[in-house]
Amino acid sequence: MFPEIEGGRYAIKRTLGEQICVEADVFADRADLLCAVLKYRHESVPTWTEVPMRNINEDRWSGSFRVTNLGTYFYTVKAWPSAFRSWAHRIQGKAEVAVDLSSELAEFGLLLQQAAASASRPDAECLSHWAELCQSGPGLPSEFNDESIRADIDRLLARYGRCGTAADYNALRVTVDPVLARFGAWYQLFPRSCATQPKAHGTLGDLERLLPRLADMSFDVVYLPPIHPIGRSGRKGRNNSLTAHAGEPGSPWAIGASEGGHKSVHPELGTLDDFRALVARARQLKLEIALDVALQCSPDHPYVTQHPEWFRRRPDGTIQCAESPPYRYEDVFPFDFDCVAWRPLWDELKSIFVFWIEQGVRVFRVDNPHTKPFAFWEWLLAELKRQWPELIFLSEGLTRPNPMIHLARVGFSQSYDYFPWRTAKAELTDYYTSLNHSDLKEFLRPSLWPNTPQLLPPILQHGGRPAFMMRVILAATLGATYGIYGPAYELCEDRATGPNSVAYLNSEQYELKCWNWDTPDNLSTLVTRLNQIRRANPALHGNSRLRFQTLANEHIIAYSKTDEHKTNRILTVVNLDPQHTQSGWTSLDLAELNLPSGGAYTAQDLLTGTKYLWEGNRNYVRLDPQLCPAHVFLLECA
Amino acid sequence: MFPEIEGGRYAIKRTLGEQICVEADVFADRADLLCAVLKYRHESVPTWTEVPMRNINEDRWSGSFRVTNLGTYFYTVKAWPSAFRSWAHRIQGKAEVAVDLSSELAEFGLLLQQAAASASRPDAECLSHWAELCQSGPGLPSEFNDESIRADIDRLLARYGRCGTAADYNALRVTVDPVLARFGAWYQLFPRSCATQPKAHGTLGDLERLLPRLADMSFDVVYLPPIHPIGRSGRKGRNNSLTAHAGEPGSPWAIGASEGGHKSVHPELGTLDDFRALVARARQLKLEIALDVALQCSPDHPYVTQHPEWFRRRPDGTIQCAESPPYRYEDVFPFDFDCVAWRPLWDELKSIFVFWIEQGVRVFRVDNPHTKPFAFWEWLLAELKRQWPELIFLSEGLTRPNPMIHLARVGFSQSYDYFPWRTAKAELTDYYTSLNHSDLKEFLRPSLWPNTPQLLPPILQHGGRPAFMMRVILAATLGATYGIYGPAYELCEDRATGPNSVAYLNSEQYELKCWNWDTPDNLSTLVTRLNQIRRANPALHGNSRLRFQTLANEHIIAYSKTDEHKTNRILTVVNLDPQHTQSGWTSLDLAELNLPSGGAYTAQDLLTGTKYLWEGNRNYVRLDPQLCPAHVFLLECA
Repeated sequence: MFPEIEGGRYAIKRTLGEQICVEADVFADRADLLCAVLKYRHESVPTWTEVPMRNINEDRWSGSFRVTNLGTYFYTVKAWPSAFRSWAHRIQGKAEVAVDLSSELAEFGLLLQQAAASASRPDAECLSHWAELCQSGPGLPSEFNDESIRADIDRLLARYGRCGTAADYNALRVTVDPVLARFGAWYQLFPRSCATQPKAHGTLGDLERLLPRLADMSFDVVYLPPIHPIGRSGRKGRNNSLTAHAGEPGSPWAIGASEGGHKSVHPELGTLDDFRALVARARQLKLEIALDVALQCSPDHPYVTQHPEWFRRRPDGTIQCAESPPYRYEDVFPFDFDCVAWRPLWDELKSIFVFWIEQGVRVFRVDNPHTKPFAFWEWLLAELKRQWPELIFLSEGLTRPNPMIHLARVGFSQSYDYFPWRTAKAELTDYYTSLNHSDLKEFLRPSLWPNTPQLLPPILQHGGRPAFMMRVILAATLGATYGIYGPAYELCEDRATGPNSVAYLNSEQYELKCWNWDTPDNLSTLVTRLNQIRRANPALHGNSRLRFQTLANEHIIAYSKTDEHKTNRILTVVNLDPQHTQSGWTSLDLAELNLPSGGAYTAQDLLTGTKYLWEGNRNYVRLDPQLCPAHVFLLECA
Repeated sequence: MFPEIEGGRYAIKRTLGEQICVEADVFADRADLLCAVLKYRHESVPTWTEVPMRNINEDRWSGSFRVTNLGTYFYTVKAWPSAFRSWAHRIQGKAEVAVDLSSELAEFGLLLQQAAASASRPDAECLSHWAELCQSGPGLPSEFNDESIRADIDRLLARYGRCGTAADYNALRVTVDPVLARFGAWYQLFPRSCATQPKAHGTLGDLERLLPRLADMSFDVVYLPPIHPIGRSGRKGRNNSLTAHAGEPGSPWAIGASEGGHKSVHPELGTLDDFRALVARARQLKLEIALDVALQCSPDHPYVTQHPEWFRRRPDGTIQCAESPPYRYEDVFPFDFDCVAWRPLWDELKSIFVFWIEQGVRVFRVDNPHTKPFAFWEWLLAELKRQWPELIFLSEGLTRPNPMIHLARVGFSQSYDYFPWRTAKAELTDYYTSLNHSDLKEFLRPSLWPNTPQLLPPILQHGGRPAFMMRVILAATLGATYGIYGPAYELCEDRATGPNSVAYLNSEQYELKCWNWDTPDNLSTLVTRLNQIRRANPALHGNSRLRFQTLANEHIIAYSKTDEHKTNRILTVVNLDPQHTQSGWTSLDLAELNLPSGGAYTAQDLLTGTKYLWEGNRNYVRLDPQLCPAHVFLLECA
């Protein structure tokens, strides 16, 4: 059955309102013709809804249903040998050689009569009527050629007749998430850098004043690094130095101090009331506040003294700190998820999420989930989504493909992907083809980030402003979900700590910033335009209809997306070379785009508004990275 | 895990002596390094044998074992986080930055000491010795760099240490069959046509006298159509006419008469003693006698009167005969496998097989298995193979791909395939690539038949002697198992009942024949040579290393097979056009063939003995179908 993940061990994922197309290979021993139905039900409804499946070729059958509630749906296929269709097929075969059919007709008439005997009123009348038709002979009653009558006979015989046994496939599961799990633009920023005065510690109030600006830029999610008290022991200084000088704020991921732990707000940011006000204001502006959950403690976290049993102690009596040899993170203790007291530990970690859910948070970005047990996440996410099916969890499992994919299987709604490391045309094409045209598309939703506070990829360090434009256009159009870490992004901040480093020089992770949001050449106008284009065009709301289009220049990538009905079509053409103008001829798959193979159509560049009249599949494009490295075309029949 | 069929629901198949290469994606949450072992056991042995697996890239691990007993083996993969390797990796990372390692060394020394405390004598001494090495510092003990020591530490810590939990995958199954299930040449003939005088009814004794000839032709299996008494009611006459004239013998598939049923020998063929003598003589000649099992009855079968409950009765009181609209087979009643008395029916059908097994039969060809329940076959084959694991069952499930494949899944050892309908180069290439380079290769063993008594394909009707030569060469080299229906095949019998028919004119199914085995231009010399070539060359004993080679002429197909070690290499080049001479240049994949890319090698045509000196991948071939439509080259380093 398709879609199906490991025999139903894991759920597939969809968002509200999406259609689920189910296909199955349905076959049986012996020569009977078959009937098949798709069965589905929401977890809250005990009875199944059945929809007929259609035989699309040989043994392959297809059916679909639409999900209209959050939570879990079950779906499966039921199939059975159709006494009616097998009989009708036999009759038709025999009629061709004009043999006497009276015995066949009598036989099927009897079957219908027997079914009528056990049927209730209107159904019994139908069955008796058909039985009479069989007695009137000499051939197949003409009424039986009508497909709707055929379907009725199948349905009533399946219900009342003594037919062959029906086979039910395993019930498979689909997790239905809010649309935001599929489609959204994220903006990450540090609240402590939101102050209007240099060197002042920004507050949640400062951030609240910035929200209208982010809403005007058409973002959907504002994602904050941890907002909790920051440890003092082992605190890191500027540029990740081992010791902090007095007044240095430390890394927000070194969570916990005497002021509190994962359920507290860093006093310099404000209070829990301030946070609730922030969430409320965001919601007015149709923005979600996403919190970062990093399940680790600074040495000063209250847990360390209150629950020493949750940490691993070394033979010398010290607590094992986080390590990634040759590095040690003296400011961070990991939890020992396998400790004897694992059950109270897991419950407490769950309570951290519950606490912030109760403050109104619905979106969480989870730090390094691959360094915690898969079993913990499978348990935790199922527990939380059972009560709050609207929750969204973004996995930052930036590790090898297998563990990254497995985190999506066990329940994360979205996953950071390898976008930052995919820069060449072949790399982008292969990677996004593998994500969107394999089983992965059923449960792994990529989130594309051109930069993060911890990652300034080489393409941005060396490509200048054209590279920043190019990479955000790629992210926003290749991915239904994308995000940027700003304002470093719009301001084209491109300085790394060294020639082979991907770390930001003077990273915000270790110091306060005061950004000038209004420099004349920043990219906020472009980013705003991109977000508006995304919202206005359903083609960009999903990834499953992404198709790479042929264009014989290795520096120009072209790809299209269409909506479900193939009436909204976006063709993005990007010059991947930030240094030189590149040009070439498209070679579009017009059938895939639902465009006429002869005749003209319009290609309107939604970034500039310019309209071109195109014809056929070959059209010329030329992109000067200094002006704009891409076209985002809306293709419309002329 | 690979190989694996539907999560282990069905067994894979191998033959005695074969190696099973197992691969698995092994990964875990967190950063620990892993160990993995392949575990296997024969069903008769309660304990597992473990062999280490090797990490071949990223998360992929590989291991192998060889099967040396018939029956069922279980195999699975066990993996666990290696405390030792993770620690050694950490130590090495830290050593590079010269931090103090005393705490790490003490920690691991303690772990080894704890394991030593619970270990028995020689193991405990090893563990203690390693613990002492850790105390001697300052870095990783140099002994720990030796891979055999590393493996020992892993093994003993896994046994005695308190390490992370090991994960065992589902136990998967492999059915181990005799080599004949993989590799064999079959010869089908009608014993009743073996008489030396025209119009005489041949006997099992006549057939016995032919066995040395078939053994000399290097066949492995002699397969007989049903040898049971033939019904008189509804008996078919010559050319499948509806009524037989007096003296016509009827179809052997209309089984059962007053003389007996499935456990009796047709009196005109001889007695059960004659049959046992035939089997004994065959075994002396290293031939297996294969019986045809058709689970159906003539109206005169004793079952019909003794067990009317096993047949389906129509409203007019008659028993339902076999039908394939618009045809009715008045001489055959099918069993009603779903009847109320299905259990005694199934048991009786099983007893038919047991009866013939007790007469010495080990190979069965099963007629039309797709018209009986899959569940019946899965039960029956498991029951029989549990007691007689040496049995071989050939499925004649010539139906759509899904049911055909499913019969192989539920336990048939071999399957008739679509070879008769695959004649063009692209068809043959696609079909045998799909069979041999997909999961199908794990459980479906194709049996290639250029003809059967019921099937004279158009290529043989219209291609003359060159087509007969071409098709048997293809079958014998593409398939490790192949068969012909003779002597019609060697005598190039090519007359069909009509222009659009694939039925033999004057088919042996409905009349006695007296073949002249010694016509001057018959193909028995070619067939004998092919069988000798097959036996002498291990490359032709399997299908998994079949590779189609490029040759830019659509009428010439070229493919190679190699043995496990790639030292025996057979390259077959066939002209698929029986009318015209064709020529072209090979474009061999020399690496796949384990041949030098520079330098010469010999290509000896094993059909003619002619030796060519070849060099590189491009060599010229020219095939005149009137002489011989193919080369079967042995490629050897010069």
